[in-house]
Amino acid sequence: MSAGRIDIVGLGPGPHDLMTFAADAVVRAARDVVGYAPYIDRLPALPGQMRHASDNRVELERARRALDLALGGARVAVVSGGDPGVFAMAAAVFEAVEQGDPRWRTLDIEVHPGVSAMLAVAARLGAPLGHDFAVLSLSDNLKPWDMIARRVTAAAEADFVMAFYNPASKTRPHLIHDVFKLLRGVKAPETITVFAHAVSRPGERIDVTTLADADPSVANMSTLVLVGSSETRRVARGNGGCWIYSPRSYGALR
Amino acid sequence: MSAGRIDIVGLGPGPHDLMTFAADAVVRAARDVVGYAPYIDRLPALPGQMRHASDNRVELERARRALDLALGGARVAVVSGGDPGVFAMAAAVFEAVEQGDPRWRTLDIEVHPGVSAMLAVAARLGAPLGHDFAVLSLSDNLKPWDMIARRVTAAAEADFVMAFYNPASKTRPHLIHDVFKLLRGVKAPETITVFAHAVSRPGERIDVTTLADADPSVANMSTLVLVGSSETRRVARGNGGCWIYSPRSYGALR
Repeated sequence: MSAGRIDIVGLGPGPHDLMTFAADAVVRAARDVVGYAPYIDRLPALPGQMRHASDNRVELERARRALDLALGGARVAVVSGGDPGVFAMAAAVFEAVEQGDPRWRTLDIEVHPGVSAMLAVAARLGAPLGHDFAVLSLSDNLKPWDMIARRVTAAAEADFVMAFYNPASKTRPHLIHDVFKLLRGVKAPETITVFAHAVSRPGERIDVTTLADADPSVANMSTLVLVGSSETRRVARGNGGCWIYSPRSYGALR
Repeated sequence: MSAGRIDIVGLGPGPHDLMTFAADAVVRAARDVVGYAPYIDRLPALPGQMRHASDNRVELERARRALDLALGGARVAVVSGGDPGVFAMAAAVFEAVEQGDPRWRTLDIEVHPGVSAMLAVAARLGAPLGHDFAVLSLSDNLKPWDMIARRVTAAAEADFVMAFYNPASKTRPHLIHDVFKLLRGVKAPETITVFAHAVSRPGERIDVTTLADADPSVANMSTLVLVGSSETRRVARGNGGCWIYSPRSYGALR
Protein backbone atom coordinates (compact mmCIF):
# COMPACT_ATOMS: atom_id res chain seq x y z
CA MET A 1 0.00 0.00 0.00
CA SER A 2 1.46 3.35 -1.04
CA ALA A 3 1.16 6.26 1.36
CA GLY A 4 -1.89 8.30 0.48
CA ARG A 5 -2.35 11.92 1.41
CA ILE A 6 -5.07 14.53 1.81
CA ASP A 7 -4.84 18.10 0.63
CA ILE A 8 -7.63 20.29 1.97
CA VAL A 9 -7.91 23.07 -0.56
CA GLY A 10 -9.56 26.49 -0.66
CA LEU A 11 -10.95 27.33 -4.10
CA GLY A 12 -11.58 30.98 -3.24
CA PRO A 13 -14.85 32.84 -3.80
CA GLY A 14 -15.58 31.58 -7.33
CA PRO A 15 -13.58 32.51 -10.41
CA HIS A 16 -10.45 30.57 -11.22
CA ASP A 17 -8.26 33.67 -11.07
CA LEU A 18 -9.06 34.12 -7.36
CA MET A 19 -7.53 30.71 -6.59
CA THR A 20 -3.89 30.56 -5.55
CA PHE A 21 -1.35 28.88 -7.79
CA ALA A 22 -0.80 26.28 -5.06
CA ALA A 23 -4.50 25.40 -4.80
CA ASP A 24 -4.72 24.97 -8.55
CA ALA A 25 -1.66 22.71 -8.68
CA VAL A 26 -2.78 20.56 -5.76
CA VAL A 27 -6.25 19.95 -7.21
CA ARG A 28 -4.73 18.97 -10.56
CA ALA A 29 -2.35 16.50 -8.90
CA ALA A 30 -5.10 14.67 -7.01
CA ARG A 31 -6.43 11.26 -8.03
CA ASP A 32 -9.67 11.84 -6.12
CA VAL A 33 -11.49 15.10 -5.54
CA VAL A 34 -14.03 15.19 -2.71
CA GLY A 35 -16.40 18.06 -1.97
CA TYR A 36 -19.80 19.68 -1.98
CA ALA A 37 -21.19 19.38 -5.53
CA PRO A 38 -21.22 23.10 -6.49
CA TYR A 39 -17.51 23.38 -5.63
CA ILE A 40 -16.62 20.23 -7.59
CA ASP A 41 -18.58 21.65 -10.54
CA ARG A 42 -16.22 24.63 -10.69
CA LEU A 43 -13.29 22.38 -11.55
CA PRO A 44 -12.47 21.13 -15.04
CA ALA A 45 -12.84 17.36 -15.43
CA LEU A 46 -9.39 15.81 -15.77
CA PRO A 47 -8.65 12.42 -17.33
CA GLY A 48 -8.01 9.77 -14.69
CA GLN A 49 -9.31 11.92 -11.84
CA MET A 50 -12.30 10.72 -9.84
CA ARG A 51 -14.83 13.21 -8.52
CA HIS A 52 -16.86 12.50 -5.41
CA ALA A 53 -19.56 15.16 -5.18
CA SER A 54 -21.79 15.19 -2.13
CA ASP A 55 -24.69 17.12 -0.72
CA ASN A 56 -24.45 19.95 1.78
CA ARG A 57 -24.61 19.18 5.53
CA VAL A 58 -22.72 15.90 5.29
CA GLU A 59 -19.28 17.31 6.05
CA LEU A 60 -18.27 14.59 8.48
CA GLU A 61 -19.33 11.76 6.18
CA ARG A 62 -17.46 13.45 3.32
CA ALA A 63 -14.35 13.81 5.49
CA ARG A 64 -14.44 10.12 6.43
CA ARG A 65 -14.72 9.09 2.81
CA ALA A 66 -11.68 11.20 1.92
CA LEU A 67 -9.69 9.72 4.80
CA ASP A 68 -10.54 6.18 3.73
CA LEU A 69 -9.53 6.89 0.15
CA ALA A 70 -6.20 8.28 1.35
CA LEU A 71 -5.65 5.32 3.66
CA GLY A 72 -6.08 3.14 0.57
CA GLY A 73 -3.15 4.97 -1.01
CA ALA A 74 -4.90 7.69 -2.99
CA ARG A 75 -3.87 11.29 -3.29
CA VAL A 76 -7.09 13.08 -2.32
CA ALA A 77 -8.08 16.74 -2.62
CA VAL A 78 -10.89 17.86 -0.32
CA VAL A 79 -12.20 21.11 -1.76
CA SER A 80 -14.02 24.02 -0.09
CA GLY A 81 -15.19 27.34 -1.45
CA GLY A 82 -13.31 30.31 0.02
CA ASP A 83 -10.79 29.25 2.65
CA PRO A 84 -11.08 25.67 3.94
CA GLY A 85 -10.27 26.75 7.50
CA VAL A 86 -13.11 29.26 7.93
CA PHE A 87 -16.37 27.42 8.66
CA ALA A 88 -15.48 24.81 6.06
CA MET A 89 -14.00 21.36 5.47
CA ALA A 90 -10.71 21.57 7.38
CA ALA A 91 -12.38 21.45 10.80
CA ALA A 92 -14.60 18.58 9.63
CA VAL A 93 -11.58 16.53 8.55
CA PHE A 94 -9.77 17.00 11.86
CA GLU A 95 -12.95 16.25 13.78
CA ALA A 96 -13.25 12.99 11.81
CA VAL A 97 -9.59 12.18 12.51
CA GLU A 98 -10.02 12.80 16.23
CA GLN A 99 -13.03 10.51 16.47
CA GLY A 100 -12.22 7.85 13.89
CA ASP A 101 -9.81 5.16 12.72
CA PRO A 102 -6.46 5.64 14.51
CA ARG A 103 -4.64 4.94 11.24
CA TRP A 104 -5.99 8.21 9.84
CA ARG A 105 -3.59 10.02 12.19
CA THR A 106 -0.65 8.63 10.23
CA LEU A 107 -1.76 10.28 6.97
CA ASP A 108 -0.13 13.33 5.49
CA ILE A 109 -2.81 16.02 5.75
CA GLU A 110 -2.06 19.49 4.46
CA VAL A 111 -4.33 22.55 4.37
CA HIS A 112 -3.98 25.03 1.48
CA PRO A 113 -5.47 28.43 2.29
CA GLY A 114 -7.69 30.43 -0.04
CA VAL A 115 -9.45 33.77 -0.28
CA SER A 116 -12.31 33.57 2.21
CA ALA A 117 -15.68 35.14 1.32
CA MET A 118 -15.27 38.02 3.76
CA LEU A 119 -12.05 39.09 2.03
CA ALA A 120 -13.67 38.99 -1.41
CA VAL A 121 -16.65 41.00 -0.16
CA ALA A 122 -14.43 43.51 1.61
CA ALA A 123 -12.34 43.97 -1.55
CA ARG A 124 -15.47 44.73 -3.56
CA LEU A 125 -16.63 47.37 -1.07
CA GLY A 126 -13.33 49.10 -0.31
CA ALA A 127 -11.79 48.21 3.06
CA PRO A 128 -14.52 47.57 5.67
CA LEU A 129 -12.26 45.07 7.49
CA GLY A 130 -9.48 47.64 7.84
CA HIS A 131 -9.90 47.64 11.61
CA ASP A 132 -10.70 45.02 14.30
CA PHE A 133 -13.46 42.61 13.31
CA ALA A 134 -15.35 39.54 14.53
CA VAL A 135 -16.43 36.65 12.33
CA LEU A 136 -19.39 34.42 13.16
CA SER A 137 -21.14 31.54 11.46
CA LEU A 138 -24.89 31.26 11.95
CA SER A 139 -25.16 27.94 10.14
CA ASP A 140 -24.79 25.40 12.80
CA ASN A 141 -27.81 23.81 14.35
CA LEU A 142 -25.64 22.59 17.18
CA LYS A 143 -24.57 26.03 18.34
CA PRO A 144 -26.99 27.04 21.09
CA TRP A 145 -28.79 30.35 20.75
CA ASP A 146 -27.40 31.50 24.11
CA MET A 147 -23.86 31.29 22.73
CA ILE A 148 -24.79 33.11 19.51
CA ALA A 149 -26.52 35.85 21.50
CA ARG A 150 -23.60 36.20 23.89
CA ARG A 151 -21.10 36.54 21.06
CA VAL A 152 -23.19 38.90 18.95
CA THR A 153 -23.82 41.14 21.94
CA ALA A 154 -20.18 41.13 23.04
CA ALA A 155 -18.87 41.94 19.56
CA ALA A 156 -21.46 44.67 19.06
CA GLU A 157 -20.79 46.27 22.44
CA ALA A 158 -17.04 46.26 21.82
CA ASP A 159 -17.66 47.95 18.45
CA PHE A 160 -16.07 45.30 16.24
CA VAL A 161 -16.92 45.26 12.56
CA MET A 162 -18.85 41.99 12.19
CA ALA A 163 -19.01 39.43 9.38
CA PHE A 164 -21.72 36.75 9.41
CA TYR A 165 -21.30 33.58 7.35
CA ASN A 166 -24.26 31.32 6.54
CA PRO A 167 -26.88 33.82 7.70
CA ALA A 168 -29.80 31.90 6.17
CA SER A 169 -30.82 28.71 7.88
CA LYS A 170 -33.60 26.50 6.56
CA THR A 171 -34.23 25.00 9.95
CA ARG A 172 -33.96 28.33 11.79
CA PRO A 173 -35.20 31.05 9.41
CA HIS A 174 -35.88 33.38 12.34
CA LEU A 175 -32.24 33.24 13.50
CA ILE A 176 -30.93 36.12 11.39
CA HIS A 177 -33.90 38.25 12.50
CA ASP A 178 -33.11 37.51 16.15
CA VAL A 179 -29.48 38.47 15.53
CA PHE A 180 -30.52 41.77 13.96
CA LYS A 181 -32.82 42.48 16.91
CA LEU A 182 -29.81 42.13 19.21
CA LEU A 183 -27.63 44.30 16.96
CA ARG A 184 -30.28 47.04 16.87
CA GLY A 185 -30.38 47.04 20.64
CA VAL A 186 -26.69 47.91 20.81
CA LYS A 187 -25.47 49.60 17.63
CA ALA A 188 -26.55 52.93 16.14
CA PRO A 189 -29.35 52.93 13.53
CA GLU A 190 -27.07 54.47 10.91
CA THR A 191 -24.46 51.67 11.19
CA ILE A 192 -23.43 50.60 7.69
CA THR A 193 -24.85 47.16 6.90
CA VAL A 194 -24.15 45.12 3.77
CA PHE A 195 -25.79 42.03 2.30
CA ALA A 196 -23.36 40.67 -0.26
CA HIS A 197 -24.73 37.89 -2.45
CA ALA A 198 -22.63 35.51 -4.58
CA VAL A 199 -19.70 37.94 -4.64
CA SER A 200 -17.43 37.45 -7.66
CA ARG A 201 -19.78 34.79 -9.05
CA PRO A 202 -22.59 35.08 -11.62
CA GLY A 203 -25.55 36.82 -10.03
CA GLU A 204 -23.40 38.96 -7.71
CA ARG A 205 -25.49 41.58 -5.94
CA ILE A 206 -24.45 43.88 -3.12
CA ASP A 207 -27.03 45.71 -1.02
CA VAL A 208 -25.56 48.52 1.08
CA THR A 209 -27.92 49.87 3.70
CA THR A 210 -28.06 50.85 7.37
CA LEU A 211 -28.87 48.79 10.41
CA ALA A 212 -32.19 50.64 10.75
CA ASP A 213 -33.22 49.96 7.16
CA ALA A 214 -31.79 46.45 6.80
CA ASP A 215 -34.16 43.65 5.86
CA PRO A 216 -32.42 40.45 6.99
CA SER A 217 -34.83 38.30 4.99
CA VAL A 218 -32.85 39.12 1.82
CA ALA A 219 -30.08 36.84 3.10
CA ASN A 220 -29.81 33.49 1.34
CA MET A 221 -27.34 30.59 1.25
CA SER A 222 -24.84 32.60 -0.78
CA THR A 223 -24.99 35.78 1.30
CA LEU A 224 -22.33 37.20 3.56
CA VAL A 225 -23.54 39.92 5.94
CA LEU A 226 -21.23 42.71 7.09
CA VAL A 227 -22.16 45.12 9.88
CA GLY A 228 -19.82 48.06 10.39
CA SER A 229 -18.31 49.53 13.53
CA SER A 230 -19.19 53.06 14.62
CA GLU A 231 -16.25 54.22 12.49
CA THR A 232 -17.06 52.37 9.26
CA ARG A 233 -17.86 55.04 6.69
CA ARG A 234 -18.74 55.78 3.07
CA VAL A 235 -16.55 57.78 0.71
CA ALA A 236 -18.39 59.21 -2.28
CA ARG A 237 -16.94 58.21 -5.65
CA GLY A 238 -16.90 60.46 -8.66
CA ASN A 239 -19.30 58.10 -10.46
CA GLY A 240 -22.08 58.52 -7.89
CA GLY A 241 -21.33 55.31 -6.01
CA CYS A 242 -19.31 54.96 -2.84
CA TRP A 243 -16.50 53.03 -1.26
CA ILE A 244 -16.83 51.70 2.29
CA TYR A 245 -13.92 51.48 4.67
CA SER A 246 -12.99 51.30 8.35
CA PRO A 247 -10.15 53.67 9.29
CA ARG A 248 -6.95 52.11 10.61
CA SER A 249 -6.92 54.31 13.70
CA TYR A 250 -9.74 54.35 16.19
CA GLY A 251 -11.23 57.74 16.83
CA ALA A 252 -8.71 59.57 14.65
CA LEU A 253 -11.22 60.85 12.12
CA ARG A 254 -13.95 61.86 14.49
CA MET B 1 -4.23 62.84 -19.87
CA SER B 2 -5.15 59.16 -20.02
CA ALA B 3 -7.20 57.69 -17.20
CA GLY B 4 -4.95 56.09 -14.64
CA ARG B 5 -6.04 53.46 -12.19
CA ILE B 6 -5.03 51.90 -8.89
CA ASP B 7 -5.06 48.21 -8.11
CA ILE B 8 -4.58 47.45 -4.43
CA VAL B 9 -3.15 43.97 -4.39
CA GLY B 10 -2.66 41.27 -1.74
CA LEU B 11 0.54 39.30 -2.29
CA GLY B 12 -0.38 36.62 0.25
CA PRO B 13 1.86 35.42 3.08
CA GLY B 14 5.09 35.10 1.11
CA PRO B 15 5.74 32.52 -1.58
CA HIS B 16 4.58 33.20 -5.12
CA ASP B 17 2.36 30.12 -5.20
CA LEU B 18 0.20 31.54 -2.39
CA MET B 19 -0.69 34.54 -4.57
CA THR B 20 -3.87 34.40 -6.63
CA PHE B 21 -3.66 34.34 -10.42
CA ALA B 22 -5.43 37.72 -10.46
CA ALA B 23 -2.93 39.35 -8.10
CA ASP B 24 -0.03 38.11 -10.18
CA ALA B 25 -1.57 39.40 -13.43
CA VAL B 26 -2.43 42.81 -11.99
CA VAL B 27 1.05 43.38 -10.60
CA ARG B 28 2.61 42.45 -13.96
CA ALA B 29 0.33 44.85 -15.82
CA ALA B 30 1.22 47.86 -13.65
CA ARG B 31 3.53 50.65 -14.79
CA ASP B 32 4.25 51.65 -11.18
CA VAL B 33 4.42 49.43 -8.12
CA VAL B 34 4.12 51.13 -4.74
CA GLY B 35 4.62 49.44 -1.38
CA TYR B 36 6.58 48.71 1.75
CA ALA B 37 10.10 47.69 0.65
CA PRO B 38 10.03 44.01 1.79
CA TYR B 39 6.86 43.40 -0.24
CA ILE B 40 8.29 45.09 -3.34
CA ASP B 41 11.41 42.94 -2.94
CA ARG B 42 9.33 39.79 -3.37
CA LEU B 43 8.40 40.77 -6.91
CA PRO B 44 10.58 40.15 -9.98
CA ALA B 45 11.88 43.35 -11.60
CA LEU B 46 10.10 43.85 -14.91
CA PRO B 47 11.40 45.96 -17.81
CA GLY B 48 9.63 49.31 -17.98
CA GLN B 49 8.04 48.95 -14.55
CA MET B 50 8.88 51.52 -11.87
CA ARG B 51 9.17 50.43 -8.25
CA HIS B 52 8.48 52.85 -5.42
CA ALA B 53 9.60 51.19 -2.20
CA SER B 54 8.95 52.98 1.06
CA ASP B 55 9.53 52.52 4.74
CA ASN B 56 7.04 51.12 7.22
CA ARG B 57 4.64 53.48 9.04
CA VAL B 58 4.20 55.85 6.10
CA GLU B 59 1.04 54.25 4.74
CA LEU B 60 -0.82 57.49 4.14
CA GLU B 61 2.10 59.16 2.35
CA ARG B 62 2.52 56.03 0.21
CA ALA B 63 -1.20 56.04 -0.63
CA ARG B 64 -1.07 59.72 -1.69
CA ARG B 65 1.91 59.05 -3.93
CA ALA B 66 0.05 56.19 -5.64
CA LEU B 67 -3.04 58.37 -6.11
CA ASP B 68 -0.98 61.15 -7.67
CA LEU B 69 0.73 58.73 -10.05
CA ALA B 70 -2.66 57.38 -11.12
CA LEU B 71 -4.05 60.88 -11.55
CA GLY B 72 -1.14 61.50 -13.91
CA GLY B 73 -2.37 58.61 -16.04
CA ALA B 74 -0.34 55.69 -14.69
CA ARG B 75 -1.55 52.21 -13.99
CA VAL B 76 -0.43 51.74 -10.38
CA ALA B 77 -0.29 48.61 -8.21
CA VAL B 78 -0.25 49.23 -4.46
CA VAL B 79 1.00 46.02 -2.88
CA SER B 80 0.47 44.59 0.62
CA GLY B 81 1.52 41.32 2.19
CA GLY B 82 -1.39 39.00 2.97
CA ASP B 83 -4.73 40.59 2.16
CA PRO B 84 -4.73 44.35 1.50
CA GLY B 85 -8.01 44.83 3.35
CA VAL B 86 -6.90 43.40 6.70
CA PHE B 87 -4.83 46.00 8.60
CA ALA B 88 -3.07 46.94 5.39
CA MET B 89 -2.95 49.38 2.48
CA ALA B 90 -6.58 49.37 1.28
CA ALA B 91 -7.85 51.34 4.29
CA ALA B 92 -4.93 53.78 3.94
CA VAL B 93 -5.79 54.47 0.30
CA PHE B 94 -9.47 55.17 1.05
CA GLU B 95 -8.52 57.33 4.02
CA ALA B 96 -6.25 59.35 1.71
CA VAL B 97 -9.05 59.63 -0.86
CA GLU B 98 -11.53 60.84 1.76
CA GLN B 99 -9.20 63.55 3.01
CA GLY B 100 -7.39 64.55 -0.17
CA ASP B 101 -7.63 65.89 -3.71
CA PRO B 102 -11.27 65.58 -4.89
CA ARG B 103 -10.04 64.39 -8.29
CA TRP B 104 -8.79 61.18 -6.63
CA ARG B 105 -12.45 60.16 -6.25
CA THR B 106 -12.77 59.88 -10.02
CA LEU B 107 -10.05 57.23 -10.29
CA ASP B 108 -10.72 53.58 -10.89
CA ILE B 109 -9.63 51.89 -7.67
CA GLU B 110 -9.94 48.14 -7.36
CA VAL B 111 -8.96 45.89 -4.45
CA HIS B 112 -7.66 42.37 -5.18
CA PRO B 113 -7.91 40.06 -2.17
CA GLY B 114 -5.16 37.73 -0.99
CA VAL B 115 -4.48 35.07 1.61
CA SER B 116 -4.27 36.93 4.92
CA ALA B 117 -1.68 35.85 7.51
CA MET B 118 -4.28 34.34 9.85
CA LEU B 119 -5.45 31.99 7.09
CA ALA B 120 -1.90 30.87 6.30
CA VAL B 121 -1.16 30.29 9.99
CA ALA B 122 -4.44 28.42 10.50
CA ALA B 123 -3.70 26.18 7.50
CA ARG B 124 -0.31 25.27 8.95
CA LEU B 125 -1.82 24.32 12.32
CA GLY B 126 -4.95 22.49 11.16
CA ALA B 127 -8.18 24.44 11.54
CA PRO B 128 -8.06 26.71 14.60
CA LEU B 129 -10.38 29.23 12.89
CA GLY B 130 -13.03 26.58 12.26
CA HIS B 131 -15.41 28.36 14.63
CA ASP B 132 -16.24 31.99 15.51
CA PHE B 133 -13.19 34.23 15.84
CA ALA B 134 -12.16 37.83 16.48
CA VAL B 135 -9.27 39.59 14.75
CA LEU B 136 -7.41 42.51 16.31
CA SER B 137 -4.44 44.63 15.34
CA LEU B 138 -2.18 45.85 18.12
CA SER B 139 -0.03 47.98 15.86
CA ASP B 140 -1.66 51.31 15.92
CA ASN B 141 -0.41 54.00 18.18
CA LEU B 142 -3.64 55.87 17.66
CA LYS B 143 -5.87 53.18 19.08
CA PRO B 144 -6.39 54.02 22.75
CA TRP B 145 -5.60 51.34 25.32
CA ASP B 146 -9.15 51.55 26.67
CA MET B 147 -10.52 50.39 23.34
CA ILE B 148 -7.99 47.57 23.04
CA ALA B 149 -8.80 46.42 26.58
CA ARG B 150 -12.53 46.57 25.98
CA ARG B 151 -12.29 44.50 22.79
CA VAL B 152 -9.86 41.93 24.17
CA THR B 153 -12.00 41.44 27.26
CA ALA B 154 -15.25 41.20 25.28
CA ALA B 155 -13.83 38.67 22.80
CA ALA B 156 -12.27 36.60 25.58
CA GLU B 157 -15.45 36.56 27.68
CA ALA B 158 -17.54 35.55 24.67
CA ASP B 159 -15.08 32.70 24.00
CA PHE B 160 -14.06 33.70 20.50
CA VAL B 161 -10.86 32.28 19.05
CA MET B 162 -8.62 35.36 18.76
CA ALA B 163 -6.01 36.38 16.20
CA PHE B 164 -3.65 39.28 16.94
CA TYR B 165 -1.83 41.05 14.11
CA ASN B 166 1.20 43.24 14.76
CA PRO B 167 1.66 42.12 18.36
CA ALA B 168 5.10 43.70 18.73
CA SER B 169 5.23 47.46 18.96
CA LYS B 170 8.51 49.36 19.23
CA THR B 171 6.82 52.30 20.86
CA ARG B 172 4.66 50.18 23.16
CA PRO B 173 6.64 47.00 23.95
CA HIS B 174 4.53 46.41 27.06
CA LEU B 175 1.28 46.29 25.07
CA ILE B 176 1.31 42.58 24.27
CA HIS B 177 2.10 41.83 27.91
CA ASP B 178 -0.87 43.92 29.03
CA VAL B 179 -3.08 42.07 26.56
CA PHE B 180 -1.94 38.71 27.91
CA LYS B 181 -2.62 39.87 31.46
CA LEU B 182 -6.21 40.57 30.43
CA LEU B 183 -6.53 37.24 28.63
CA ARG B 184 -5.22 35.36 31.67
CA GLY B 185 -7.83 37.05 33.83
CA VAL B 186 -10.62 35.62 31.67
CA LYS B 187 -9.55 32.48 29.84
CA ALA B 188 -8.45 29.12 31.26
CA PRO B 189 -4.70 28.55 31.80
CA GLU B 190 -4.71 25.56 29.42
CA THR B 191 -6.11 27.60 26.50
CA ILE B 192 -4.09 26.77 23.37
CA THR B 193 -1.88 29.71 22.40
CA VAL B 194 0.29 29.96 19.30
CA PHE B 195 3.06 32.34 18.28
CA ALA B 196 3.50 31.89 14.54
CA HIS B 197 6.55 33.63 13.07
CA ALA B 198 7.13 34.32 9.36
CA VAL B 199 4.69 31.59 8.33
CA SER B 200 5.40 30.20 4.84
CA ARG B 201 8.52 32.38 4.55
CA PRO B 202 12.17 31.57 5.27
CA GLY B 203 12.69 31.36 9.01
CA GLU B 204 9.17 30.09 9.72
CA ARG B 205 8.79 29.01 13.33
CA ILE B 206 5.62 28.05 15.17
CA ASP B 207 5.51 27.89 18.97
CA VAL B 208 2.45 26.08 20.32
CA THR B 209 1.92 26.55 24.03
CA THR B 210 -0.78 27.34 26.59
CA LEU B 211 -1.97 30.67 27.91
CA ALA B 212 -0.34 29.88 31.27
CA ASP B 213 3.05 29.09 29.71
CA ALA B 214 3.03 31.70 26.95
CA ASP B 215 5.89 34.21 26.87
CA PRO B 216 4.56 37.16 24.84
CA SER B 217 8.05 38.63 24.50
CA VAL B 218 8.79 36.10 21.72
CA ALA B 219 6.47 38.09 19.44
CA ASN B 220 8.21 40.17 16.80
CA MET B 221 7.19 42.17 13.72
CA SER B 222 6.52 39.00 11.71
CA THR B 223 4.50 37.19 14.37
CA LEU B 224 0.81 36.41 14.36
CA VAL B 225 -0.61 35.34 17.73
CA LEU B 226 -3.55 32.95 17.98
CA VAL B 227 -5.38 32.28 21.24
CA GLY B 228 -7.92 29.46 21.16
CA SER B 229 -11.47 29.26 22.47
CA SER B 230 -12.37 26.84 25.26
CA GLU B 231 -13.08 24.29 22.51
CA THR B 232 -9.88 24.63 20.50
CA ARG B 233 -8.06 21.32 20.84
CA ARG B 234 -5.06 19.25 19.82
CA VAL B 235 -5.26 16.00 17.87
CA ALA B 236 -2.18 13.80 18.17
CA ARG B 237 -0.58 12.89 14.84
CA GLY B 238 1.08 9.56 14.15
CA ASN B 239 4.44 11.32 13.83
CA GLY B 240 4.43 12.67 17.40
CA GLY B 241 3.23 16.15 16.47
CA CYS B 242 -0.30 17.46 16.62
CA TRP B 243 -2.94 19.26 14.64
CA ILE B 244 -4.95 22.06 16.21
CA TYR B 245 -8.56 22.73 15.37
CA SER B 246 -11.75 24.34 16.65
CA PRO B 247 -14.83 22.11 16.21
CA ARG B 248 -17.61 23.40 13.97
CA SER B 249 -20.26 22.85 16.63
CA TYR B 250 -20.13 24.52 20.00
CA GLY B 251 -20.26 22.14 22.93
CA ALA B 252 -20.80 19.06 20.76
CA LEU B 253 -17.57 17.33 21.72
CA ARG B 254 -17.62 18.05 25.42
